[in-house]
Amino acid sequence: MAAVPALARRIVSSGVLPLCRRLPAWGRAIRQPPSFPLAPCRAFSNNKIQVEMNESSGVATMKFKSPPVNSLSLDFLTEFCISLEKLENDRACRGVVITSAIPKIFSSGLDITEMCGKSTEHYAEFWRAVQEIWLRLYSSNMVTLAVINGSSPAGGCLIALSCDYRIMAENPKYTIGLNEAQLGIVAPFWFKDTFVSVVGQRVAERSLQLGSLYPAPEALKFGIVDELVPEEKLQEKAAAVMAQWLALPDHARQITKSMMRKTVLDRLVAHREEDIKNFISFVSKESIQKSLRMYMEMLKKKKS
Amino acid sequence: MAAVPALARRIVSSGVLPLCRRLPAWGRAIRQPPSFPLAPCRAFSNNKIQVEMNESSGVATMKFKSPPVNSLSLDFLTEFCISLEKLENDRACRGVVITSAIPKIFSSGLDITEMCGKSTEHYAEFWRAVQEIWLRLYSSNMVTLAVINGSSPAGGCLIALSCDYRIMAENPKYTIGLNEAQLGIVAPFWFKDTFVSVVGQRVAERSLQLGSLYPAPEALKFGIVDELVPEEKLQEKAAAVMAQWLALPDHARQITKSMMRKTVLDRLVAHREEDIKNFISFVSKESIQKSLRMYMEMLKKKKS
Amino acid sequence: MAAVPALARRIVSSGVLPLCRRLPAWGRAIRQPPSFPLAPCRAFSNNKIQVEMNESSGVATMKFKSPPVNSLSLDFLTEFCISLEKLENDRACRGVVITSAIPKIFSSGLDITEMCGKSTEHYAEFWRAVQEIWLRLYSSNMVTLAVINGSSPAGGCLIALSCDYRIMAENPKYTIGLNEAQLGIVAPFWFKDTFVSVVGQRVAERSLQLGSLYPAPEALKFGIVDELVPEEKLQEKAAAVMAQWLALPDHARQITKSMMRKTVLDRLVAHREEDIKNFISFVSKESIQKSLRMYMEMLKKKKS
Repeated sequence: MAAVPALARRIVSSGVLPLCRRLPAWGRAIRQPPSFPLAPCRAFSNNKIQVEMNESSGVATMKFKSPPVNSLSLDFLTEFCISLEKLENDRACRGVVITSAIPKIFSSGLDITEMCGKSTEHYAEFWRAVQEIWLRLYSSNMVTLAVINGSSPAGGCLIALSCDYRIMAENPKYTIGLNEAQLGIVAPFWFKDTFVSVVGQRVAERSLQLGSLYPAPEALKFGIVDELVPEEKLQEKAAAVMAQWLALPDHARQITKSMMRKTVLDRLVAHREEDIKNFISFVSKESIQKSLRMYMEMLKKKKS
Repeated sequence: MAAVPALARRIVSSGVLPLCRRLPAWGRAIRQPPSFPLAPCRAFSNNKIQVEMNESSGVATMKFKSPPVNSLSLDFLTEFCISLEKLENDRACRGVVITSAIPKIFSSGLDITEMCGKSTEHYAEFWRAVQEIWLRLYSSNMVTLAVINGSSPAGGCLIALSCDYRIMAENPKYTIGLNEAQLGIVAPFWFKDTFVSVVGQRVAERSLQLGSLYPAPEALKFGIVDELVPEEKLQEKAAAVMAQWLALPDHARQITKSMMRKTVLDRLVAHREEDIKNFISFVSKESIQKSLRMYMEMLKKKKS
Repeated sequence: MAAVPALARRIVSSGVLPLCRRLPAWGRAIRQPPSFPLAPCRAFSNNKIQVEMNESSGVATMKFKSPPVNSLSLDFLTEFCISLEKLENDRACRGVVITSAIPKIFSSGLDITEMCGKSTEHYAEFWRAVQEIWLRLYSSNMVTLAVINGSSPAGGCLIALSCDYRIMAENPKYTIGLNEAQLGIVAPFWFKDTFVSVVGQRVAERSLQLGSLYPAPEALKFGIVDELVPEEKLQEKAAAVMAQWLALPDHARQITKSMMRKTVLDRLVAHREEDIKNFISFVSKESIQKSLRMYMEMLKKKKS
């Protein structure tokens, strides 16, 4: 695994929630801005995520481009975190479109190699990065729009669920869902909380128990995504949806979002260390290591 | 602003929840009846709300008739509160239909003049009255039926959401929704809680962030109202729906209602003074005063 | 009333939640297995419930056969509890189909004779058994599938709601719902919690206040059941659905289920004695005794 830059490490472990940073708040305490400075962003690119900023619209586009399947490795999560942080701190940036540059896949979810045969310290660092990206994305001050132009299982689905709105390509070959149970693992409580917020308790309970992956039309039916659009019209639709959201005054929209998501965010913040310990304890079990190894073998054979 | 009668002030600040007052309770403590006496009501009318009581059916009808748009001024809220209280204490009254006597509008929501250029004391009194009407309506022992015969934004929508059932005129020109964010303000947490109870977390999150006003057909689709009826058949339908609800024994229906709504009611009761302080602090900001003045100017120009 | 066997009494009052008993847990403490031994089950039958175990599929079928209407008497509940416990402790049993051997009725709900003219001790014992069956069923480690081949009011509906999945015969003459309010009684908070988990707050609030019994097609529309199937195809469909659920690794599915249902289960566990006291106090009221007697008279006349 490549070394994680020091800044990234610092961001990843800072635990700062960006929401409401620049805002006077009605009905809750104002969260203080983080004290570390970050370079003002205009346009930047890095290894695994391509970020373009449209200065006239105030909308950034983040494209996942980590072949073969945009899996959420520690490196990927670290870049994702830095990119989000830069945009969050850019006053000109009001919204972000999250999509994929890899055909047919949005993101395949957590990188299983990070969970297999590594040290306890590595598991802790990895899990903290997974938590961090969710905390930042779910609490973002920006309008966050997922443009799901490919399949999006497990952690990929979580990224989409954490946005404000989800548009998916109208292609029944693309599937989305929290399918952890199919791999013999359990979605953490905050994956579950995020899912319940979007689809309700009943659909979440059934889908999580069955580890259901839904083809796009079913995903729409169950409310996992908000709209289906032919793939060639995704960009156009994304621009229209973003314009609709940006027509609102940032201030009121941001406080409203914070009010709606506070309970779920607070639950992870309150149990973060415990959640890391649980992950380490779970992933360190020989039975789990064995089934992850078997799963990776299967993936390798599939490829070749 | 007209003087508020002393009795009304007392009611408005009493904070008594009427639900379960006359009832033996299974599974919760009995709330005591208020100690102040109120004249028994049969039929009464006042300035801004017309109340008719049908003694044979046990159903009262409250018609908002405060031109031009039934806005929820302090005077209006005070009358609303007294009227509800009278009906609540009238043993012959088992249900109330809430509707408008003004064409095309149910209620335009909170009266912005009450929030603009007034004293801190005034803001506190106004906000307490808004809280009070919600507490009384949401916890009413009576069957409460909103017959929405016109548009119903913001606070008007809250009144409708607080009833047991909502029938709306089948007219796509009439809209309903909690559109506060469009005005740059934020719906308070108890508006949000009431909304979530009716439409679920996902629809509430999106609608509140976008400040969505839904035409009647969409309001039905998203569950904001329960039924659409051609405007000329609203009365007939209201009578039928009320009869269905009154077919149930009051006792069991009331305790069930209390059980369903207790959590949401308790949250405001526990944070009432804090919520008033937050409102005062918010509305006293120069930026908010400025945008409310601009909004009022716009409304005036629209009229002339 | 027939004497309740000592073992049954012990089970009924043990208050042990079986979920996660045999499982390593990620994110929660492992519940210890109960210390009392139970005979290993393969196939057994008793008075009111017929249990068949298919050893090759790992699926048991429980058929209620307590004429005339499978009412949930103390004897019935005790047998139900013992049967569930046996299956739960049988490592070969991974799923259970719950259905009725009586035509046109799944279960008529709580046996009113147990609530009428009996001693305080009897009411306590009965209510504890009602709680116990819900605790065990709602927290079962097995896949629980309700095959609703007849009407299922009140407590019968609760049994169905507590399963993982509900298939109902496509017959509009069969109805289902928590209709307690129609009898002048109130569904306890944990009936309500279970209902809200399945259909959401709004549908639950309206249905519980009105005591609605829904014909099968409406039950599907409101999400009370998951699927309708022609009566003659129920068995075939049940086998297919069960196979789908059993395709998942037990471990992950069970922990997921526990995570989803924990809050609701914990609420009754924390308030169990209080809930019994409330039931006794409610059912001991002369007004309630009178209306239950009247209801039983009505049922007797209907029969003859």
